[in-house]
Amino acid sequence: MRVTVCRNSDFNAAHQLLNPDWTPEKNREVFGKCFNPNYHGHNYKLTVKVTGEVDPETGYVMDLKKLDDLIRLEIHDRFDHRNLNLDCTEFKTLNPTVENISVVIWNLLRKKINAGHELTIVLYETERNFAEFRGA
Amino acid sequence: MRVTVCRNSDFNAAHQLLNPDWTPEKNREVFGKCFNPNYHGHNYKLTVKVTGEVDPETGYVMDLKKLDDLIRLEIHDRFDHRNLNLDCTEFKTLNPTVENISVVIWNLLRKKINAGHELTIVLYETERNFAEFRGA
Amino acid sequence: MRVTVCRNSDFNAAHQLLNPDWTPEKNREVFGKCFNPNYHGHNYKLTVKVTGEVDPETGYVMDLKKLDDLIRLEIHDRFDHRNLNLDCTEFKTLNPTVENISVVIWNLLRKKINAGHELTIVLYETERNFAEFRGA
Amino acid sequence: MRVTVCRNSDFNAAHQLLNPDWTPEKNREVFGKCFNPNYHGHNYKLTVKVTGEVDPETGYVMDLKKLDDLIRLEIHDRFDHRNLNLDCTEFKTLNPTVENISVVIWNLLRKKINAGHELTIVLYETERNFAEFRGA
Amino acid sequence: MRVTVCRNSDFNAAHQLLNPDWTPEKNREVFGKCFNPNYHGHNYKLTVKVTGEVDPETGYVMDLKKLDDLIRLEIHDRFDHRNLNLDCTEFKTLNPTVENISVVIWNLLRKKINAGHELTIVLYETERNFAEFRGA
Amino acid sequence: MRVTVCRNSDFNAAHQLLNPDWTPEKNREVFGKCFNPNYHGHNYKLTVKVTGEVDPETGYVMDLKKLDDLIRLEIHDRFDHRNLNLDCTEFKTLNPTVENISVVIWNLLRKKINAGHELTIVLYETERNFAEFRGA
Repeated sequence: MRVTVCRNSDFNAAHQLLNPDWTPEKNREVFGKCFNPNYHGHNYKLTVKVTGEVDPETGYVMDLKKLDDLIRLEIHDRFDHRNLNLDCTEFKTLNPTVENISVVIWNLLRKKINAGHELTIVLYETERNFAEFRGA
Repeated sequence: MRVTVCRNSDFNAAHQLLNPDWTPEKNREVFGKCFNPNYHGHNYKLTVKVTGEVDPETGYVMDLKKLDDLIRLEIHDRFDHRNLNLDCTEFKTLNPTVENISVVIWNLLRKKINAGHELTIVLYETERNFAEFRGA
Repeated sequence: MRVTVCRNSDFNAAHQLLNPDWTPEKNREVFGKCFNPNYHGHNYKLTVKVTGEVDPETGYVMDLKKLDDLIRLEIHDRFDHRNLNLDCTEFKTLNPTVENISVVIWNLLRKKINAGHELTIVLYETERNFAEFRGA
Repeated sequence: MRVTVCRNSDFNAAHQLLNPDWTPEKNREVFGKCFNPNYHGHNYKLTVKVTGEVDPETGYVMDLKKLDDLIRLEIHDRFDHRNLNLDCTEFKTLNPTVENISVVIWNLLRKKINAGHELTIVLYETERNFAEFRGA
Repeated sequence: MRVTVCRNSDFNAAHQLLNPDWTPEKNREVFGKCFNPNYHGHNYKLTVKVTGEVDPETGYVMDLKKLDDLIRLEIHDRFDHRNLNLDCTEFKTLNPTVENISVVIWNLLRKKINAGHELTIVLYETERNFAEFRGA
Repeated sequence: MRVTVCRNSDFNAAHQLLNPDWTPEKNREVFGKCFNPNYHGHNYKLTVKVTGEVDPETGYVMDLKKLDDLIRLEIHDRFDHRNLNLDCTEFKTLNPTVENISVVIWNLLRKKINAGHELTIVLYETERNFAEFRGA
């Protein structure tokens, strides 16, 4: 009997979209105002979903308090009130699009979640733009 | 051509998390403030999803008004303004975690929904914690 | 590495539910107040989800700005501030239920989205009623 | 000790904006696509606020269940799944803008609410457009 | 130049509505299912609004981090995961209606907020029912 | 008969909180992680409220389409996808707290809105922190 438990969280960060191999003109053409070299920012909203068997002793797939602690430690403390491009090693050479941030978050949490559990990430960059990643 | 139709609903209930086979110390350690013996409560938000073929006569997979009547009768009237542990036979011996409540709701609705239709339950305990169940 | 990117949008429209082969009595019985011959209306909320590989050059599955332009051109400009039954050829002979509108939107967008990408439509008719369609 | 109690509700309706004394050209110029003669529609979201003394016997300013019954009877049953222009006498000669609908709702409820209580109406036409009316 | 700064918070609690001077029949008649003697519960959502001059040194009316700490200490830690009737001295003899809880929260915070600042409380008991209190 | 009409909008920006007359230690002490010299960012959500008489010709206090155009021109195009500290002259010497941004927006719109109309700004920096300004 596999159930999915989910936890919502958020972090606020600055970023710039760019491909460092491209000219500024090409970057401006592709990324538009997201290429602003002085950065802009977002309130990112994150949903972490963990699927597994319900433990009959606890009625839990995973203690959501522990999942929340894990998200705080691995994601919130790493990215909140940061400049993703300048402050976060994960994006030194990786363009911080909502797709790439989702994959980075999945990889960071995957190694901390029970291997028998499936993991899905949903990440809202704005109320209108979001991404989902279920693993490679 | 299978489409999923979905209906949101809600109910407000009190509950306590506990394993009756454990000592109070062990329950306090595992369930923290959710073990409060005087109960606490939530506004539960429920999404019921039904997947099936669209009937060409009506354009409906299932009349959402009838699905709403079913949710009211089977779920809302059973759990709303109740103490899940004390008032609801379903949780006399089952810990009312968001996982277990989702499975109970799925089982209650499964027997009332057309067998050819798939059923998924999404249940929010708070704005940040929720569960999904698609059947065993 | 397949990721899903999603874009929210909306349109406001009038409609009436009916089966033109039925008597008014039968239509009233099945569709209730949705059969009102003078029409009623909704703020439809639409989520378009596109799944594909992340392009390593851009970090994009698909440029969400271009997806938004596509939704505006193909869906919003076609249905917004319209009477679905009277103004939209798609519903001249098709009952504009939330199921059928979802399938129509999927078909309109499917032919404009890269064939290697999967497409999912989520359409809210009200805050409580919605449909999902992932293709035939 | 005056407290304000509030109740949220909703209704779904079709409408057209127009001034019948104007030419179609003038109406089109002022009201744009809201002038569509075949109507469009909205999910209206309504908040009714009632301010008064807290009754020490009940702890209520006004029983919100009774306020909800009143809203259902006076507002929801009158406007839900209706065409405001064609079906509702209130808008036979009054343009159903969000401003005018708010004033009509205020007048309908004012005569049913205890005279010692203040009444405020908040009406959302869409998620982005809304009006507030506190009385003349 | 007076600006209002606002902070949202929440707490989850069980309660029962009753007037201990009344018979069970009278309580049942007035409070309906909210009189359930085994309690029910809610996710309360709280907005605290503080109005005052903007300090030219900081650009703050009041540091929202400090306001959040105050809300956590005075309100959240007192009421979260509690039974308002049984666990909270404030409601030993006061009926925990949304009106009365709002006034109690206002009084608890009023004595901790700078006397030159105005204080307003908004408290949601459910998504549809809420109260506002601006002081006696 | 004065009614208030309201329009929601948003913009995404980077910023840093600081008082340039203070030492970094003092800034860090007062502004905490908001002082990050590499900036962080937010999805700001803005509500603009305009109060005035309803024009009997149009049923409008003010055409919300024109209010939206004004917000886009004066606020969105000025602040969206910008670094408030580096890119916006308004905050060259003014700390971009939610209080100060609200006052700046009010001043920018005040000179464009009919003098007989009252103006109120509500600005959300995050889902939990927001400010309101009704004028000096």
